[in-house]
Amino acid sequence: MKVQNQININDYRPAEGFIKRCQELIKKEVLPYQYDVLNDKADNAEKSHVVQNFINAANVLKGKDKGDGFYGMVFQDSDAAKWIEAAAYSLALFPDKELEKKVDDLIDLIAAAQDEDGYLNTRFTIDDKDKRWTNLLEAHELYCAGHFMEAAVAYYEATGKKTLLKVMEKNAEHIYKHFVTEDHSGYPGHPEVELALLRLYKATGNPHCYELAERFLNVRGVDREFYKKEVKARDWTVWGNNAEDMYYQQSYAPVREQADAVGHSVRAVYLYTGMADYASQADDMEMTEACRKLWKSITQKRMYITGGIGSTGIGEAFTVDYDLPNDTAYAESCASVGLMMFASRMLELEPKGEYADVMENAFYNTVLAGMSLDGKRFFYVNPLEVIPGVSGIAATHWHDKPARSSWYACACCPPNIARAVSSFGKYAYGQSESTCYCHLYAAGEVTFDNGVVLECETGYPYEFTVKYHIRKGGKDLAVRIPAWSRSSELLINGEKAVCEIKEGYAYLNGIHDGDEIELKLDSRAFFVYPSAKISENTGCAAVMRGPLVYCFEGVDNEGDVLSLKADDSCGITPSDFDGQLLGGTVVLSLKGARVSGQERLYSMEKPKETESTLTAVPYYTWGNRGEGQMRVWIPLK
Amino acid sequence: MKVQNQININDYRPAEGFIKRCQELIKKEVLPYQYDVLNDKADNAEKSHVVQNFINAANVLKGKDKGDGFYGMVFQDSDAAKWIEAAAYSLALFPDKELEKKVDDLIDLIAAAQDEDGYLNTRFTIDDKDKRWTNLLEAHELYCAGHFMEAAVAYYEATGKKTLLKVMEKNAEHIYKHFVTEDHSGYPGHPEVELALLRLYKATGNPHCYELAERFLNVRGVDREFYKKEVKARDWTVWGNNAEDMYYQQSYAPVREQADAVGHSVRAVYLYTGMADYASQADDMEMTEACRKLWKSITQKRMYITGGIGSTGIGEAFTVDYDLPNDTAYAESCASVGLMMFASRMLELEPKGEYADVMENAFYNTVLAGMSLDGKRFFYVNPLEVIPGVSGIAATHWHDKPARSSWYACACCPPNIARAVSSFGKYAYGQSESTCYCHLYAAGEVTFDNGVVLECETGYPYEFTVKYHIRKGGKDLAVRIPAWSRSSELLINGEKAVCEIKEGYAYLNGIHDGDEIELKLDSRAFFVYPSAKISENTGCAAVMRGPLVYCFEGVDNEGDVLSLKADDSCGITPSDFDGQLLGGTVVLSLKGARVSGQERLYSMEKPKETESTLTAVPYYTWGNRGEGQMRVWIPLK
Repeated sequence: MKVQNQININDYRPAEGFIKRCQELIKKEVLPYQYDVLNDKADNAEKSHVVQNFINAANVLKGKDKGDGFYGMVFQDSDAAKWIEAAAYSLALFPDKELEKKVDDLIDLIAAAQDEDGYLNTRFTIDDKDKRWTNLLEAHELYCAGHFMEAAVAYYEATGKKTLLKVMEKNAEHIYKHFVTEDHSGYPGHPEVELALLRLYKATGNPHCYELAERFLNVRGVDREFYKKEVKARDWTVWGNNAEDMYYQQSYAPVREQADAVGHSVRAVYLYTGMADYASQADDMEMTEACRKLWKSITQKRMYITGGIGSTGIGEAFTVDYDLPNDTAYAESCASVGLMMFASRMLELEPKGEYADVMENAFYNTVLAGMSLDGKRFFYVNPLEVIPGVSGIAATHWHDKPARSSWYACACCPPNIARAVSSFGKYAYGQSESTCYCHLYAAGEVTFDNGVVLECETGYPYEFTVKYHIRKGGKDLAVRIPAWSRSSELLINGEKAVCEIKEGYAYLNGIHDGDEIELKLDSRAFFVYPSAKISENTGCAAVMRGPLVYCFEGVDNEGDVLSLKADDSCGITPSDFDGQLLGGTVVLSLKGARVSGQERLYSMEKPKETESTLTAVPYYTWGNRGEGQMRVWIPLK
Repeated sequence: MKVQNQININDYRPAEGFIKRCQELIKKEVLPYQYDVLNDKADNAEKSHVVQNFINAANVLKGKDKGDGFYGMVFQDSDAAKWIEAAAYSLALFPDKELEKKVDDLIDLIAAAQDEDGYLNTRFTIDDKDKRWTNLLEAHELYCAGHFMEAAVAYYEATGKKTLLKVMEKNAEHIYKHFVTEDHSGYPGHPEVELALLRLYKATGNPHCYELAERFLNVRGVDREFYKKEVKARDWTVWGNNAEDMYYQQSYAPVREQADAVGHSVRAVYLYTGMADYASQADDMEMTEACRKLWKSITQKRMYITGGIGSTGIGEAFTVDYDLPNDTAYAESCASVGLMMFASRMLELEPKGEYADVMENAFYNTVLAGMSLDGKRFFYVNPLEVIPGVSGIAATHWHDKPARSSWYACACCPPNIARAVSSFGKYAYGQSESTCYCHLYAAGEVTFDNGVVLECETGYPYEFTVKYHIRKGGKDLAVRIPAWSRSSELLINGEKAVCEIKEGYAYLNGIHDGDEIELKLDSRAFFVYPSAKISENTGCAAVMRGPLVYCFEGVDNEGDVLSLKADDSCGITPSDFDGQLLGGTVVLSLKGARVSGQERLYSMEKPKETESTLTAVPYYTWGNRGEGQMRVWIPLK
């Protein structure tokens, strides 16, 4: 039984602040550019063909010529879905008739590309109808369906419009017929449809959606040989994926028995998100326990300080405990979006601050770093150390690029970042019948289903006071106190609040109309020390302020950060907020030293150390001032 | 024009000491075991079939049935060659009629497997005569030929027997006919034959050998498209090697224009060895300059402190400058043997201490580490950090095993280590008409071609006095002073020697019969500091004593070396020599600290540091006491 839910996207109206500025960037830069990409109208973009695929599929269904056929990756359709989902959230924040018309038209086109039996996928509608559902391992049919289901729910939630919702309900019925009624075995190679079906169930109440999600979760990893049999039974492949590698797509054991986060990290967290949502909806304690174990595996043993996950480019995957290389990290932007989703579902299951802490960390660091400050370039991979000349060049570092790519080279992550940013309000605020949850700090007006209305005012993450003006009270308010805040103060109407603090939340019982609540968090920057088990980071520390992980860039440090050591016995000095720098930021200054005079590869002479002031900027802002060195973990003096 | 040459293998008679003990191990354990492997008689070994391949090839040539045909890697023959070469050196040190008989019989078998046109390679004699010389990229025919040439020269040098020498001279004529007379284009995918032909030339005086080596060196990388054309012209492949990757086999440019050490590291150093030998024999300044550049590229930018080379398992290759990861290093044992060969040829070209320093470093650290102390197990890959649970397990670390493998799993490196150890005298002593060079310190009697006879007495590398008793003088003596020895003393007949020190060598002019020369090197252990450009090692130091790089193993340090920090403001204390420990060694003790109390992945609390004594053992001894953590570079307190 779900403890609490995210708020409706329409129930958050952003006010001036950091989050709104990010959301405006998505509206202004990201959504229009991706729309052009989908329509093959973007400058310098590789051919996308996404919209044309739908046109061609619709023509095939009408018995017409398939035109130039299908083009793109097997999951090309999902680009349209993710764009619609991001656009839906944006429309809820910033109504825009022109954008809404574009979405409506695209949805009509998608509807026209749906087969009368409910099937929807341009790849197999245009070319190989007989190959439908014969390659669950690679063909991403259920993955694409899942993204369209999420888009349908989001657009319905934002606009009340049901066209896509009905398309996807019909599609869900088609899938139900194939897998349940006709009892075909198998489960998705790339999890996503599970979490999407559960969202669709909540939006439509259609029990087949719930039942289907449950089935996919329950059969996963039970027949471990399924993909091997599938490979044998078909005479085609997409990439020749190795069906023997049962870790890659988390099919090595029934999900309830999985305890270590393994395999492709995006697949993993999408699966765990579905599991967590199911666990709360079904009140399934065994599933809950599995989710807790997987959460611990990630956050206590396999996560970067930036909320990045996936230690290797080989399979874009988790590796083993404490293996967290900085320079060869994968830490895909999408994986951190997925980690936010998993965290959000865990919060719905049990409101514990640790979930919100990780969710916030992933957002402010890896997810935001995935996009340039002008919204035009993106990282797929988010290393914690970049050395031009090595990063992006050495065979082991090819995936760790020293500069963001424009969208076209990187189709998967940008819309995922767009939907995470645009739906931030849903991650920030949760609700149960009795309690309003403030998980993250997002300025704006929030209307809860239980009747409470509040206005949040904050300059977070650069200011550390969060004010909640209660416009309409009558219920309880739970405000998260982040673990990083060593001294926090909660005032109600100017007085220190008397309240229970439980698992990272301050519970204010019975708030009233007109109450003024003020949370004062710790504004001091601080050092973070890694577990000695992380061999990459021994002798080092990182620097944070609030939820922001900082990094050292060459441009601020004489072009060379590898020679720097920090002195953690001295304090860290934040600058004043500089509105002109890096989209508006606070820079940190540290005492330390620069080693020099060591020209040889190895030397018996102790290098000279000169006192030096080190400058750090937020990790999410790195790489916005040309290519240079960057590192998060720095040796201590 | 060659400055000086290695001594003849017969002209070094080992005396009691470290080197002799290593050489005895090769004789006692390694050679007999590999002989059994070649003959498919070793316990627990995978089928080798090497000898049977020669039997079957000989039968094919006699028009008989091919029996069970060819089995093994395309370069399987080379195992026999490397064994013969190692056995030859060992026979020179330790005469052994039984072993010599085995070698003679094997050579007779090899001779029987040579086609009447001189061709020698069981793979293509047994199965595909028409495919001879059609796949230089992958098929290793010239590589195998090169190893047999080296074996032939070594066995001739050791025993005076010419059977194999004649077989290989005939084989060289066959190759000459194909590539020179008939002017077929191409050059070896795996360099080796170049250096081997130059050795064969020196042993036989056959000008075709020289000419052929010269040709292979001169055409390499001139037609950069050669392998692409070759791939197009054939309808078969061994491994599907990518002919587009011109760096892998160093064919991206003419060798005289190559400046960075790139590609497969063993191929690279074998090539450079041939280049350096050619440069001195041909007095080719352009080639000399290229060798100097490549040497600098390796030793100033791409070499581990252990003399290991090859930073990645992807292509077993060099990567880029300063990319020297410790835990994912490749640092193949064979590559360090090749680096010794390259260094030795550079020394012949110009006697500079830096060549001998690197040669010694590669030998005492990576080459020796490649073999267990009992001579029964071997490392292919030599990482500088091993963490059980990660090393050998994570996809990025699969090649970095935490324990040595028995021979059969690792056929390439063991015989290479065996030949390097057994021929140590040739690396240690060089000669010109006027001067006797002592490059490395190896106890024993040495007879130089110029008439000088000396006896070297030393407990090196655990004692730091090297005595040279001059039995027969009359020429000059050049004794290397290693760069690591901060205070060295050279005495002649008890008096401080008055001599010129030039580029790492002390030149004693006109030594006399009965002279007693004593070199006293610095016995102090010392810290080594890495260039700040090596991102992996910032904030760290390593520890050495003499030529030995030390490492920290879990077994000596409470099972956990990742928590250790060293204090480089304190001294390093060597233990007494312990004859029982690790085959006889000296342990180092350091002051430092152990961090503790940090149970979380990341924490705001500064971990507690407790004063601690750190224990280090020589890197070459690591992994001989069960699996545990090991690291060379350690953070500084």
